[in-house]
Amino acid sequence: MTRQGLLIVISGPSGAGKGTVCQGLLQRNKELCLSVSCTTRPPRPGEQHGVNYFFVDKTTFEQMIANNQLLEYAKVYDNYYGTPQKYVEEKLAAGRDVILEIDIQGALQVKQKYPQGVLIFLVPPSLSLLKERLTNRGTDSAESIASRLKCVCDELSNTGRYDYLVINDTVENAIDQVEAIIKAEKCRPSRFDFDMKKFLEC
Amino acid sequence: MTRQGLLIVISGPSGAGKGTVCQGLLQRNKELCLSVSCTTRPPRPGEQHGVNYFFVDKTTFEQMIANNQLLEYAKVYDNYYGTPQKYVEEKLAAGRDVILEIDIQGALQVKQKYPQGVLIFLVPPSLSLLKERLTNRGTDSAESIASRLKCVCDELSNTGRYDYLVINDTVENAIDQVEAIIKAEKCRPSRFDFDMKKFLEC
Repeated sequence: MTRQGLLIVISGPSGAGKGTVCQGLLQRNKELCLSVSCTTRPPRPGEQHGVNYFFVDKTTFEQMIANNQLLEYAKVYDNYYGTPQKYVEEKLAAGRDVILEIDIQGALQVKQKYPQGVLIFLVPPSLSLLKERLTNRGTDSAESIASRLKCVCDELSNTGRYDYLVINDTVENAIDQVEAIIKAEKCRPSRFDFDMKKFLEC
Repeated sequence: MTRQGLLIVISGPSGAGKGTVCQGLLQRNKELCLSVSCTTRPPRPGEQHGVNYFFVDKTTFEQMIANNQLLEYAKVYDNYYGTPQKYVEEKLAAGRDVILEIDIQGALQVKQKYPQGVLIFLVPPSLSLLKERLTNRGTDSAESIASRLKCVCDELSNTGRYDYLVINDTVENAIDQVEAIIKAEKCRPSRFDFDMKKFLEC
């Protein structure tokens, strides 16, 4: 019997460096697999269906919601984004560990539906650095940045909802810690594939 | 404020390789500290008070029991063995991670007194290998070995009491896993020394 894979949810505020940590993690660990989200937004040039996203129309997405086929979803402006449960479950059943990079609201939805998932909250090293990163991106207004920073403080005052906290002081450190968490979680009695029959026989 | 150290309890049946794994762990991680036990048995040649054991007389040991000064203790034949709570707590308070190498009965006593301790059960790779190791030691009768092997099977059928299980297939693998567990446990929200004030200021 194949051992069930691990669902690792990497979450945290925008600007915490989720994307960089996930990419580094995948580069170092070829056996890890990144979950592919569904969206109703049109593909950008170069984006491929099934690689960057599963591109679906609004009716299809709303049917997936109605049929409870999403681990989590959100509507951002006029577009839906969500994590298809079937895709993730198939990978896990095949023994693959799956990485989900997602905001904290989505992460908490996943944890509710799939409590054995491992929820890692990536903490930016300081508020001023986070402000700097968000400002340098140039995609948010000063008002939106202020509101995001306020949000981060709220999220950090309620850390009991997360399984692990990782400070992203350097990408290497953060990846080391996520790797240790994955290795340790596989030693949990509930996940441990101890084969008593084999133990007794061999 | 110094972050509280971690108490790591390495347990498992005799012959599982606890001693070898602990020694390897301490060699690789100089900042780890091994707990020193108390005993009423006389020192063997070369053994030093405060290094190998704290050698105390029976009256002193029984006073320590009465005063609740031991994290765990056991009487083996005519001698007492136990873990002095003060020694461990002082190291932890100074931010040192402490390793406790101990049998499963003692480990469960420690976990009851100090639930934030991390209980790792070291699993021998197979029963036949364990039998071979115990036989080669030459210190146990065939009867005692049979009773020990029976005991291992009981312990393994009740793994929910342990925080982690580590198969000691090779010492290197086992040490890697214990190191990952230590690193991961430090990312637990309950142990995380997140300094919100510093986060907001710097």
